[in-house]
Amino acid sequence: MRLNYLGPQGTFTHQAAIEASKVMEALSPEAIIAPQPLDTVEEIMTAVQRGKGWGVIAWENNVEGYVVPNLDALIDAKDIAAFARVTINVAFDAFVLDEAQVRNPGGLTQVCAHHHGLAQCRRFTAEHGLEELPATSNAAACRDLMPGQVALGPAICGPLYGLKTLANSVQDFADAHTDFLVLAPRGEVLDVLEDYRRRELGEFETVIAFVLLHTGAGSLSKVLDLMRDAGLNMTSFMSRPVKGHDGAYSFFATVDAAPWQPHFRWVLAQFLSQGEWVKTLAVYPRSERPDPPVDTSMLPHGGVYLGPECADQARNIIKADSGTAPAAPGQLPGLDLATAASQPGQDPRMEGQGEAMRRELLW
Amino acid sequence: MRLNYLGPQGTFTHQAAIEASKVMEALSPEAIIAPQPLDTVEEIMTAVQRGKGWGVIAWENNVEGYVVPNLDALIDAKDIAAFARVTINVAFDAFVLDEAQVRNPGGLTQVCAHHHGLAQCRRFTAEHGLEELPATSNAAACRDLMPGQVALGPAICGPLYGLKTLANSVQDFADAHTDFLVLAPRGEVLDVLEDYRRRELGEFETVIAFVLLHTGAGSLSKVLDLMRDAGLNMTSFMSRPVKGHDGAYSFFATVDAAPWQPHFRWVLAQFLSQGEWVKTLAVYPRSERPDPPVDTSMLPHGGVYLGPECADQARNIIKADSGTAPAAPGQLPGLDLATAASQPGQDPRMEGQGEAMRRELLW
Repeated sequence: MRLNYLGPQGTFTHQAAIEASKVMEALSPEAIIAPQPLDTVEEIMTAVQRGKGWGVIAWENNVEGYVVPNLDALIDAKDIAAFARVTINVAFDAFVLDEAQVRNPGGLTQVCAHHHGLAQCRRFTAEHGLEELPATSNAAACRDLMPGQVALGPAICGPLYGLKTLANSVQDFADAHTDFLVLAPRGEVLDVLEDYRRRELGEFETVIAFVLLHTGAGSLSKVLDLMRDAGLNMTSFMSRPVKGHDGAYSFFATVDAAPWQPHFRWVLAQFLSQGEWVKTLAVYPRSERPDPPVDTSMLPHGGVYLGPECADQARNIIKADSGTAPAAPGQLPGLDLATAASQPGQDPRMEGQGEAMRRELLW
Repeated sequence: MRLNYLGPQGTFTHQAAIEASKVMEALSPEAIIAPQPLDTVEEIMTAVQRGKGWGVIAWENNVEGYVVPNLDALIDAKDIAAFARVTINVAFDAFVLDEAQVRNPGGLTQVCAHHHGLAQCRRFTAEHGLEELPATSNAAACRDLMPGQVALGPAICGPLYGLKTLANSVQDFADAHTDFLVLAPRGEVLDVLEDYRRRELGEFETVIAFVLLHTGAGSLSKVLDLMRDAGLNMTSFMSRPVKGHDGAYSFFATVDAAPWQPHFRWVLAQFLSQGEWVKTLAVYPRSERPDPPVDTSMLPHGGVYLGPECADQARNIIKADSGTAPAAPGQLPGLDLATAASQPGQDPRMEGQGEAMRRELLW
């Protein structure tokens, strides 16, 4: 089985393809997986669509966010879905040509890598006083390495290109990781999913896309209410303009459930019965993930947060002032939390905070 | 007034800075705006925070999506907000060193640009049979251009680096555009906003960020319900893990209103009174934008959509089958739209569609 990935050899996508091969070999031990580098994601999608093997594409990086062009490619693919998700740590090693340069790194003058690689190892570059030289890929930087140069790339590049390691894990941000999806034609994905279910592999995660054909105030809210009513937990949600149609939106949601589970199936059926467009993009076994209680130490700088007692007080002010939700925007009372907060006799944590709240909320 | 942007000169951000200067000069005609190139977005944020001028950062591209590191920088900035948004068309011209090469382009062998520039002009590169040579920026490619090479860059690079234009608008995707935000310290943003209000500039758009400290089933849905109840129209919505805390989420919403309008102010006060964290990141005059009715011709390939009659029928099936929302996921009936659809006697458009639905929904 051919597994198409974004080449050349020695990229993080290559590492992802090797990880994905292990997943696939665990599913069918007799399968022989042959990773195959291609030049563009478009070629990968075309190959999968034509039955020329499966594919691996980058999906989400915890620093850079979603790989949006790949999301757009998957939502618009004719007959492709994902059945596995693999995570690769974005760790860069620094390579040189020979041992002499490892022992005497003072003579090094340039650092070569893909633009993103250079951007992720700025501290190392500054410490060694190197000049940045961008390459078409980290692998190309390793392949074309010259004396006096350092190449940055994933660990597999060392043995692949016969280089010496000057330093390990030189990236600025230690916890960067990229998730990849493993793709197949939908008919084959259904077979894999049946296999998962037979093996009782545990919990699943699903990525769905939907387009609201009946827009208007509250249409999105109605959709999310359905998910809540069914007890579906959503871990990621994003709106995207429909390609070529600024002002029309599609939505991507990642959900802690499989589409064949009754509560999720109920939600999908409700979407359909309301006349909306829905497509399941990916279903894969859910990996363990942290679910920390959110506490105030995690909050970004600035902003406004009222402690429990202040919030109680604010709630009472709002209640007395405005009752429940307004019938229409025009009928809203001139609620003024900031003013209320700066009145004497209020909770001391709210006192004098009116101006600070105004700066943070710009109201 | 210094206006800091991501250098070098001749980048799209430079073009955005020039556009932003026009906006700022319209606000205060006596102001002299001096665009100042800096090396990183971090330096821009630091300069603005220290009162060393205002700043311009890339925010959203219609092909690549949000510039997520810049979102993360703005949500976590101590005292910075945005008061203007400018749109730049991502159009590349192809430059050469002299007229002789314009007349005889057959001798050209390489194309130089930033990685993103190369990726956006692949058709031109293929048509001319050029080899890609990445540069640290499009401007650097133009500055360092050699005989036999083509550089790709925004139109301003021609006069800036004394180059000849081989071809205009050589990008693959004609409608690509990037939006930039113009940043200032919050105190100064409040002054600008007061000025906007005095001039009755019309409608506004606001970007808010919030973190739900009280998570649990339906917490996000509750927040969106508040927006709906207040009649707030949301044009973009995204979840992001809180930096360094996988599993804890912040949300970015773009809303068609200004935070001082009573209905929006009511929503913000409700968020606060529920003990959530809120921060307004940007308020700026809303530009005209398309608001097309969504029709089925815009839908991506594949997926499932039931025409009005089918949807009615499906709704009746669901109603008869499952009543209203289930009390708990476990109590859901085994609703089977797909099976219903393939029963004889149903609407012909639903007949035999069970297997197709299964492939698209993976249920």
